Amino acid sequence: MCEMISGGVCAAQGFRAAGLHVGVKTHNVNKKDVALIVSDAPCAAAAMFTKNVVQAAPIHVTRAHLAAGRVRAVIANSGNANACAPHGEENAERMCAAAASALGCAPEEVLVASTGVIGQTLKVDVIEKGVPELFGLLERSDGASDAAAHAIMTTDTVKKECAGEVIIGGKTVRIGGIAKGSGMIHPNMGTMLCFLTTDCAISQEMLQEALGEVVRLTFNRISVDGDTSTNDTCCILANGLAGNPEITSRGEAYVDFVMKLHEVCYHLARQMAKDGEGAKHLITCTVRGARSEEQAETISKSVISSTLTKAAIFGCDANWGRVLCAMGYSGEKFDPERVDVTFGSEAGEILVCQNGRGLDFDEDMAKKILTEDEVEIEIRMAEGDESCTCWGCDITYDYIKINGDYRT
Amino acid sequence: MCEMISGGVCAAQGFRAAGLHVGVKTHNVNKKDVALIVSDAPCAAAAMFTKNVVQAAPIHVTRAHLAAGRVRAVIANSGNANACAPHGEENAERMCAAAASALGCAPEEVLVASTGVIGQTLKVDVIEKGVPELFGLLERSDGASDAAAHAIMTTDTVKKECAGEVIIGGKTVRIGGIAKGSGMIHPNMGTMLCFLTTDCAISQEMLQEALGEVVRLTFNRISVDGDTSTNDTCCILANGLAGNPEITSRGEAYVDFVMKLHEVCYHLARQMAKDGEGAKHLITCTVRGARSEEQAETISKSVISSTLTKAAIFGCDANWGRVLCAMGYSGEKFDPERVDVTFGSEAGEILVCQNGRGLDFDEDMAKKILTEDEVEIEIRMAEGDESCTCWGCDITYDYIKINGDYRT
Repeated sequence: MCEMISGGVCAAQGFRAAGLHVGVKTHNVNKKDVALIVSDAPCAAAAMFTKNVVQAAPIHVTRAHLAAGRVRAVIANSGNANACAPHGEENAERMCAAAASALGCAPEEVLVASTGVIGQTLKVDVIEKGVPELFGLLERSDGASDAAAHAIMTTDTVKKECAGEVIIGGKTVRIGGIAKGSGMIHPNMGTMLCFLTTDCAISQEMLQEALGEVVRLTFNRISVDGDTSTNDTCCILANGLAGNPEITSRGEAYVDFVMKLHEVCYHLARQMAKDGEGAKHLITCTVRGARSEEQAETISKSVISSTLTKAAIFGCDANWGRVLCAMGYSGEKFDPERVDVTFGSEAGEILVCQNGRGLDFDEDMAKKILTEDEVEIEIRMAEGDESCTCWGCDITYDYIKINGDYRT
Repeated sequence: MCEMISGGVCAAQGFRAAGLHVGVKTHNVNKKDVALIVSDAPCAAAAMFTKNVVQAAPIHVTRAHLAAGRVRAVIANSGNANACAPHGEENAERMCAAAASALGCAPEEVLVASTGVIGQTLKVDVIEKGVPELFGLLERSDGASDAAAHAIMTTDTVKKECAGEVIIGGKTVRIGGIAKGSGMIHPNMGTMLCFLTTDCAISQEMLQEALGEVVRLTFNRISVDGDTSTNDTCCILANGLAGNPEITSRGEAYVDFVMKLHEVCYHLARQMAKDGEGAKHLITCTVRGARSEEQAETISKSVISSTLTKAAIFGCDANWGRVLCAMGYSGEKFDPERVDVTFGSEAGEILVCQNGRGLDFDEDMAKKILTEDEVEIEIRMAEGDESCTCWGCDITYDYIKINGDYRT
């Protein structure tokens, strides 16, 4: 939970949420598995989806509903991805219809998302049966956002929630959200779901543009295991209840909105990377001195995605050779003789490689630095002035344990 | 060890080998760390190297020596990669000079390779001191090939050796080799070393062409952890002692040679994948019905490189959803509604996904199939008639253990 304002996905005016166990997850009745987020007023809505060629049914349905116009609600379940599953689109539509019926709106005004096991038929009947109770639980409160955040978790160990506020056109505009991450997270959105709400008045076009800009800088710069899932969805609903003059073009108000949205998503993305399946360390990799932001991003992603680098950080081993190696196979050209690598954390920082050669460094100090929860790898090249930061996590015994037998 | 003929890297006429502990590996004096392979006659030689931008010093030196003409010997050490290390090229040249001095040839007639930790100064003095003893151990025998194969091992648990023979121009031509693999193995040659020898008479040009063709079909189709190393080297020496008419163009003799070389390298590549760090299962993934061999290869590599698929196989979990997911993010376009997936092994085979949808299959049978050491994932698409097979391994607790603290 980032420390900006409370309220999560209910922070913005006119948004209520709820989460409930209805029976999609059969193992544990204490685990919530359906979330509902509704707006009192119709919303402009925008979304970003996985680039995987195999896309889950709810993505097809949400795409169609977004094209149909304004939106009132989002319904989401965990425990089953409804991907490559029989009756996928039919069942996704039935989830929307159930929410719409409770809410008194058209099914096209509801967006839908799912996460969990691929390839098994979604038990849509238990969701339909549960929706009236879920609807009765809707509230605008910290607790309601918390319940919704829990209801979309799979192997996540902590909920991901964040909210912030900004003055736009003399009005207080709030942006909040909940997210889930854990496994299958990779640039271009691994199994992540993120539902953002705002009371900002903003056109659909500018909302989509803002979301695209921000996702590129945040969720697309995290990696847990290099696997990009079939279900990734990040959507935002804007109901305009803050009363600011509607943002319809790129101007000061748009920039203020994007900056706050960026801040909220930045915190959510870091929470996701930190809670990667089985992870013990959040790894931040900043590449400086690149020819372009794209080059810095490609190299940074290659480092945070390197299984060998991730294993070294798990072992608190300052194995900078693996960092250089991952840079080298990133596909980007650079002069390896002009690369410096520094490991840092709250415990300090230590230069371990200069001009592509190892330095004699204090191994005990390096170990101390890498024992901290949050570890930073800073890379300096001599190609130009651009930089980029990406986030990842270490790979641990628990990752193997969690993923060795996920289905059963 | 493949079951073709014995002799390994000494199977071909006129090749002798030796392996010895000289002190590069300090932890265990029983672990050999320097290998020497020599030919009684000058050889045509060819090599393929890592595509990593960061290339170890021995690669620069070997490239230069290959350009200088014919070759008499290969010297290689394990325990230190001599990559990003002080005095890298100087130390690699000193290894060649030591071998040349013992053998009585020019240093340019010696190729060199290293594998092990990146970034630490190579203790070249212990290698120089050890070379005379190593030279005295040179033999043409199974034992000598075995010693050399052991001397290039790092985290490998078994040596990799293979040899075969073929009649060319009425003469018996032999091809043999030793290899090391284990971690950092990925298409485009992760930390792998492979030294091949043949008594075939063949021009340098045709030898390079043959090696390129075969590496593409074998070593570049295996993946252990997706990390491509700084040191990968696959080289072949051909001394012509078989007495066949020299192969100087693409003809029947060339094709026979390539087919046998393919067979030897196929066995070595499979041994590498099977002995991936901590691996319990060899995974073979065959993609059929692709538009092109390239498409089949890209998709197959994406599947065998997927950390989530590898974890599922470790757990003997028939999680075909992860297979589809990995196909989907491969970057290749295909119709996900026309994909069939079958898991197979010596215990049988089972169709788990048809036309992109899960089937109700016998979970106990699937578990039984996936419990075998060698597991096959067969994917059928409906895009065309091309196919490709790649090899990988599962990811296990031991992988994390081995790589969490490799340097110290």
